[in-house]
Amino acid sequence: MKLWGGRFTKATDKSVEEFNASIQYDCRMYAEDICGSIAHATMLAKQGIISQEDKDAIVSGLKTIYEQIEAGDFEFSVELEDIHMNVEKRLTDAIGEAGKRLHTGRSRNDQVALDTHMYIRKEIAAIAKLLIQLQQSLVSAAEKHKDVIMPGYTHLQRAQPVLFSHHMMAYFSMLSRDFIHLQYAWDMADMMPLGAGALAGTTYPLDQPFVAKTLHFGKLYDNSLDAVSDRDYIIAFLEFAAVLMMHLSRLSEEFILWSSSEFKFIELDDSHCTGSSIMPQKKNPDICELVRGKTGRFYGHLMGVLTMMKGIPMAYDKDMQEDKEGVFDAIDNLKFALTIYAAMIDKMTVNKEHMREVLETDFSNATDMADYLAKKGLPFREAHAVVGKAVHYCIEKGKVLQQLSLEELQAMSPLFAEDIHHYLDIEICVDQRNTYNGTAPSSVERQCRDGHQTVHTEQEQMDQWSDIVSTVYDLVK
Amino acid sequence: MKLWGGRFTKATDKSVEEFNASIQYDCRMYAEDICGSIAHATMLAKQGIISQEDKDAIVSGLKTIYEQIEAGDFEFSVELEDIHMNVEKRLTDAIGEAGKRLHTGRSRNDQVALDTHMYIRKEIAAIAKLLIQLQQSLVSAAEKHKDVIMPGYTHLQRAQPVLFSHHMMAYFSMLSRDFIHLQYAWDMADMMPLGAGALAGTTYPLDQPFVAKTLHFGKLYDNSLDAVSDRDYIIAFLEFAAVLMMHLSRLSEEFILWSSSEFKFIELDDSHCTGSSIMPQKKNPDICELVRGKTGRFYGHLMGVLTMMKGIPMAYDKDMQEDKEGVFDAIDNLKFALTIYAAMIDKMTVNKEHMREVLETDFSNATDMADYLAKKGLPFREAHAVVGKAVHYCIEKGKVLQQLSLEELQAMSPLFAEDIHHYLDIEICVDQRNTYNGTAPSSVERQCRDGHQTVHTEQEQMDQWSDIVSTVYDLVK
Amino acid sequence: MKLWGGRFTKATDKSVEEFNASIQYDCRMYAEDICGSIAHATMLAKQGIISQEDKDAIVSGLKTIYEQIEAGDFEFSVELEDIHMNVEKRLTDAIGEAGKRLHTGRSRNDQVALDTHMYIRKEIAAIAKLLIQLQQSLVSAAEKHKDVIMPGYTHLQRAQPVLFSHHMMAYFSMLSRDFIHLQYAWDMADMMPLGAGALAGTTYPLDQPFVAKTLHFGKLYDNSLDAVSDRDYIIAFLEFAAVLMMHLSRLSEEFILWSSSEFKFIELDDSHCTGSSIMPQKKNPDICELVRGKTGRFYGHLMGVLTMMKGIPMAYDKDMQEDKEGVFDAIDNLKFALTIYAAMIDKMTVNKEHMREVLETDFSNATDMADYLAKKGLPFREAHAVVGKAVHYCIEKGKVLQQLSLEELQAMSPLFAEDIHHYLDIEICVDQRNTYNGTAPSSVERQCRDGHQTVHTEQEQMDQWSDIVSTVYDLVK
Amino acid sequence: MKLWGGRFTKATDKSVEEFNASIQYDCRMYAEDICGSIAHATMLAKQGIISQEDKDAIVSGLKTIYEQIEAGDFEFSVELEDIHMNVEKRLTDAIGEAGKRLHTGRSRNDQVALDTHMYIRKEIAAIAKLLIQLQQSLVSAAEKHKDVIMPGYTHLQRAQPVLFSHHMMAYFSMLSRDFIHLQYAWDMADMMPLGAGALAGTTYPLDQPFVAKTLHFGKLYDNSLDAVSDRDYIIAFLEFAAVLMMHLSRLSEEFILWSSSEFKFIELDDSHCTGSSIMPQKKNPDICELVRGKTGRFYGHLMGVLTMMKGIPMAYDKDMQEDKEGVFDAIDNLKFALTIYAAMIDKMTVNKEHMREVLETDFSNATDMADYLAKKGLPFREAHAVVGKAVHYCIEKGKVLQQLSLEELQAMSPLFAEDIHHYLDIEICVDQRNTYNGTAPSSVERQCRDGHQTVHTEQEQMDQWSDIVSTVYDLVK
Repeated sequence: MKLWGGRFTKATDKSVEEFNASIQYDCRMYAEDICGSIAHATMLAKQGIISQEDKDAIVSGLKTIYEQIEAGDFEFSVELEDIHMNVEKRLTDAIGEAGKRLHTGRSRNDQVALDTHMYIRKEIAAIAKLLIQLQQSLVSAAEKHKDVIMPGYTHLQRAQPVLFSHHMMAYFSMLSRDFIHLQYAWDMADMMPLGAGALAGTTYPLDQPFVAKTLHFGKLYDNSLDAVSDRDYIIAFLEFAAVLMMHLSRLSEEFILWSSSEFKFIELDDSHCTGSSIMPQKKNPDICELVRGKTGRFYGHLMGVLTMMKGIPMAYDKDMQEDKEGVFDAIDNLKFALTIYAAMIDKMTVNKEHMREVLETDFSNATDMADYLAKKGLPFREAHAVVGKAVHYCIEKGKVLQQLSLEELQAMSPLFAEDIHHYLDIEICVDQRNTYNGTAPSSVERQCRDGHQTVHTEQEQMDQWSDIVSTVYDLVK
Repeated sequence: MKLWGGRFTKATDKSVEEFNASIQYDCRMYAEDICGSIAHATMLAKQGIISQEDKDAIVSGLKTIYEQIEAGDFEFSVELEDIHMNVEKRLTDAIGEAGKRLHTGRSRNDQVALDTHMYIRKEIAAIAKLLIQLQQSLVSAAEKHKDVIMPGYTHLQRAQPVLFSHHMMAYFSMLSRDFIHLQYAWDMADMMPLGAGALAGTTYPLDQPFVAKTLHFGKLYDNSLDAVSDRDYIIAFLEFAAVLMMHLSRLSEEFILWSSSEFKFIELDDSHCTGSSIMPQKKNPDICELVRGKTGRFYGHLMGVLTMMKGIPMAYDKDMQEDKEGVFDAIDNLKFALTIYAAMIDKMTVNKEHMREVLETDFSNATDMADYLAKKGLPFREAHAVVGKAVHYCIEKGKVLQQLSLEELQAMSPLFAEDIHHYLDIEICVDQRNTYNGTAPSSVERQCRDGHQTVHTEQEQMDQWSDIVSTVYDLVK
Repeated sequence: MKLWGGRFTKATDKSVEEFNASIQYDCRMYAEDICGSIAHATMLAKQGIISQEDKDAIVSGLKTIYEQIEAGDFEFSVELEDIHMNVEKRLTDAIGEAGKRLHTGRSRNDQVALDTHMYIRKEIAAIAKLLIQLQQSLVSAAEKHKDVIMPGYTHLQRAQPVLFSHHMMAYFSMLSRDFIHLQYAWDMADMMPLGAGALAGTTYPLDQPFVAKTLHFGKLYDNSLDAVSDRDYIIAFLEFAAVLMMHLSRLSEEFILWSSSEFKFIELDDSHCTGSSIMPQKKNPDICELVRGKTGRFYGHLMGVLTMMKGIPMAYDKDMQEDKEGVFDAIDNLKFALTIYAAMIDKMTVNKEHMREVLETDFSNATDMADYLAKKGLPFREAHAVVGKAVHYCIEKGKVLQQLSLEELQAMSPLFAEDIHHYLDIEICVDQRNTYNGTAPSSVERQCRDGHQTVHTEQEQMDQWSDIVSTVYDLVK
Repeated sequence: MKLWGGRFTKATDKSVEEFNASIQYDCRMYAEDICGSIAHATMLAKQGIISQEDKDAIVSGLKTIYEQIEAGDFEFSVELEDIHMNVEKRLTDAIGEAGKRLHTGRSRNDQVALDTHMYIRKEIAAIAKLLIQLQQSLVSAAEKHKDVIMPGYTHLQRAQPVLFSHHMMAYFSMLSRDFIHLQYAWDMADMMPLGAGALAGTTYPLDQPFVAKTLHFGKLYDNSLDAVSDRDYIIAFLEFAAVLMMHLSRLSEEFILWSSSEFKFIELDDSHCTGSSIMPQKKNPDICELVRGKTGRFYGHLMGVLTMMKGIPMAYDKDMQEDKEGVFDAIDNLKFALTIYAAMIDKMTVNKEHMREVLETDFSNATDMADYLAKKGLPFREAHAVVGKAVHYCIEKGKVLQQLSLEELQAMSPLFAEDIHHYLDIEICVDQRNTYNGTAPSSVERQCRDGHQTVHTEQEQMDQWSDIVSTVYDLVK
């Protein structure tokens, strides 16, 4: 029996019912729905809108339902459309008339908004933890391999030697920005919509600040029309997720390159790779490829919700029901990706010697040669030209710069002296780049130290979020 | 036990296995996988690559597995990664060594491509049928309401009166283009990839044309690298689906507008609407809103696959596994939307009188007044200016054009004569627009006649596709 | 002459040069490029890397170039690729060798990043101002029309009466979130990349904190690889812009609806509308439609940059040059849209009487009738059913709820008493929704008061940004 | 003076005018606008709607305007909004009243649709030519390097040896599908909208088939509402362009990889690369990176138009004006990319020896070893396991498969005999994959032969398009 059928003369078409229902996916918000209802009922009683007895019956009935769902002992019904109706129907079946009073001063429009805000907050806390873990894996890798020098690239051409640790810490920096993005997403989610009713507020003397406090929300919505039709917090989460996946897609690309026969910079652990059903020699970096590929679905989900919200009038429109499946899928895949990447980085092998060798055979130190001349007074632009010619000469002779004799060099510029070979040494090239965020060991050590501090600060934030979440969910215990 | 583990020293991490597996969603291609394997085994035997006995055992084993899956008597395993491995493992368990020969001259790379091509073809045939049904509903509505005149809009401002039928037939035209788009998608899907092996072809004397013929494919891939890494057919389908949903989003917007208290042009059947848990008077056009909102997920899926394919090297990369969930979701939602829309159009009520009334109170006939003057020799630009002033005069006086007296009119232009009131009549305004694709009854009747012909031609195409599909799936009977 | 051609044996193909060049669009960052170079040169001199004389020559030369560009007296050259090379070449032509020393310890990779960070900061400050103006227009409209009651909608069906002011303030709330989003975008842009060199830092003893302080940056990048390849700040801005446009697309949809003959809730000023070349009566809300339509290009730009960054390895890749045109276009269009919307809201006419009239003819007060019964003790679910039947009865009788006699009502429920007609009065319905964020005048007045406070706080932020920007650009004065 | 201002009492706001105007970008359709007007005027005269003299004056006036624009002697005005008004105003200024009759039976809604259809057709013909040129470059490269063997990859891990030619022909296949996609786009564009008027057809006895014939259109729109609001042809073109760019992004990725120090498979010509302002040794594949990066903007444009069209009611809405800038940008960039890629492929150097060498040091022949065993009767799954172990053994011993002695091999499987070393030879591995679309020389030769045939067929199509286009534009000569 529909809860809204009074003015209708015909039953809903079965396929419409199915198309319309959201219970298939919003059932995952059962804890939020129940905790939210407990907070609502408690407030209704406090305000004298329902009796204390009704409230007690409701709360105890809801706790029972929570246990039944947790125990897998609850059958969700498509006919009842969504998690709200499923829970309320079961409650009313169990406790009778009091159950029918629960929906007083509330609409599904603000109720689903409440559930989703709470759900997103919970998942942000969980994802913060995994994000921090991945950052820790990166800084650990940076510390573990602190003496590994690798070719640095621009345009995928070897550019200048860098520390492998420096490369790892670049991703650490990206993830630190993602954490700030996540804080923004939390702020968007941490707003309490209940009490907005269907769209205009209600005629009951609700105490919205009390509900917000019970559910540990930082803010109330200022406007009821906005409260039921705001999906910015969904978009904010998807923005965060899309950018984080973009960062992981870049790391994936690099791991795939580095695992190739051509680069051979790292070897991923067997447990993180798979083989081929046809080619016995294959060891494929599938995880990296999947993460790179999954970036597409995250962009798609973001685009999906943005498109859905485009041009729809206030307040609530049914279009907005389409906000959930994408974000749920994003959450699941993100948690997976963060977890596996941390493990993969922890277990990968880094081929220090091989990277060192290839650096002896290329021109990664050409900039250092130009800097050498510039420091002796040649304008940098002219120094650049001299070295450009030296490189060209080397390519023709099959040499690298450090193999040029002083005579050959001085024929190119009289400014070259004996110490030039010192400055072409790869270790020296790295050491010399000791500016604040350069690749010199001193700089990378500072990055690691600061990285630990960043992680510490993030953890405090994450703990605060986790505390909020666990306190709220204690309502149902 | 993995089928590719020989060169590995460690087992796959459990969470990697789960992340990596596709069986959760590719299991829906079991019929394709089995039919494809039957065709492959038959060809292997014909070519003498496996024995006739092995082939018979394989085919009969596969048919049994098909029946088991159909009967719900098959447990899919994540450890076995995908539908191919799940079927092959069960086959080998059942028939022994012969099962291990089935994969000869084949790789999962070309096998999954084959399955997906076949699956998309099957769904294109099914969707063609639903698309045609919706077109039939539109032309039926056009014929049923052929004497209904409504305001036509540009910029959501009333522009000129049009036949309601003309409006319905505009959507018919859009869907006819979608059918052409679908034919393009079929052509992209109707290419046979098997025999490409992992990427380079195989060393077995395969007869690929034979397999193509057995599975009724129109074309073979010309190049094996392309065969295993082409996802254009997925994109083609998603393009078709995105544009079709865009068309339905426009129709949805109009149905939502027309169902509002302000327009009141149509009333959707109770069975296609739902109510509110809080507002007893509500009857909401949820289906229309959902279809409009779902447009977002279709755009998202298209964007997802395009992003996934961006910049990945040949041939097969694991990223490509991400091609399926979006397209499967698009197929399911599209079939739903097409089905419900046909029913909704069949059952809706059209408020002929109300539309006629509102036309008496607006300026939809202003263009006709300008045309009247232009036909009497005034350059159109000047006629436009005269009528613009007449409209302005009417707004100030609270009148409409047909209420102006001949004196009032002649004060504006001496070209006005008695017959002007004839030409301002709404029916006449409609009748006069009798150009080829105009809104006059004669034109709309032609559109309906041609519409039936279009449907007939589409049905022939659809029947051909259905025949191909059903013949192919008979392999497993 | 290319500045990098030493190791090349052939000149660049002309069409490659053109395809590769960015000067066509990055020329708009000339002020940033020049101020950044002044800061860089000043630091180089302070650190003793270049002489004081060279520094003076550079600074004075750059100021001259700035004036020339401002005066339109500078011809940009495609052969010189970008704004950096164009300025540097002119500088060297003017001051000789000193000009060639400017690029010491710097690469175009960090230079373009610096310019773009500065440019985005400048535009954020400008956009903040326009955003606040639009918010002020909304709160002014809310205050001006504070006694206007309109139908509130869900599903575009009339739901409950709301204050027009409440509706305006809902958009105010959305824009307040956009301002928070903008602060996030500022934080992403407010990071100083110079000193990262090409990718690895430099071998010169740069004082990066000094440059950051000179250019008033809040943060330094922690890692040089990240500094040259980070485009998160572009994405952050485009996220902000996409969501803001989504909000405006919703407002646009509503203004378009409200301007239609069917709604007639508002009339836009003639100066903000356009007509038709063919239909003399037309007055079209083109601006609203354009803003709604332009939402698409904003989503597209966001998708474009996300796609561009997907899966590209560190550090700088040329792909990243594609970051600018989209964001520039977004900035231009956003400034336009914000400006026009503020003016449009200021000048629109609100049809108070018409809105009031339509409310007398619908069922917007049905929830109030259900609440009435619920407050008399009927469980809300049962009250809802009673009113549902009452609505159905009214539709059949051609009445509205307030026209039902007490007898008719009591036949439906004995709980109805004389005071029911009081509670069905539209003004009372609005007054009763006096919860924190409800639509009652008391709540909306609070929203307006808080709105002024929000604007005040935003202005402080905006002033701070403007100060930073104007101080920085004083470098060139 | 606005051509539609009669009913307005206030002038348009200046900034509204600018925001609203499209002349900044639609001016590039001047030839289409003028040819379309010539066809329209000719038809009007033929039907007796305007006089022969008026028609002659119009046609001659339009030709003059065409010459003025071509000569750069025409100043476009923002106040006149668009190309249509700009041309018409100048015409009327030149020839007087006859000019004002040109717009008879026409609206800007169908006029802009006509112009854009014609413009897209013209550019499709131009792009077809460039697409075919690129295909020719690919088949030429395949023929030129027909004896080059390279490692084939899946998952960026070496998989099996393939012919370099085979790799080139894979891209040829992709582009052949793009050509089919382009034909679909042509079909969508090749529909004549004129005569639809503003939305409903016109009251003049137009001869639309005559106009269609004059402008060589294949089809008329069936429905006038659809004719003015259809943007499927824009979307169809952008779909084609997005997929083509996706293909080029993959080729770009491969060229970037192959140009790296690690792969060294090809060297791009100096004229197609650029250097670094800081690192003298750099030679960067900028073009490839730009094309890969530009893929993002194409996806963005597609998303932009899809979003713009989502949920807007019929018929014409101003949103649709946003259809042009994206598609114009796509056209420009696509022509650039196709042109440069053809030249780049023609001039690149292929390092045959290096590719051959690396193949001697890897396990690309492992599948052949498994096939060897399978052909001797071992089920393939078991053969796979034997070779997997052999690979593992080799890795530990630092060998490759062809270096294993017969004894070592026979210890792994007694099925190995002397001829195994023959089958491990790289040339043999390639030769053996002689299935229809495999990598064997015989197959690739067939692909090249068929490729020439495909190009020939495409050229016939392209010539037909070019003929249509040039015939149409002769109207203005």
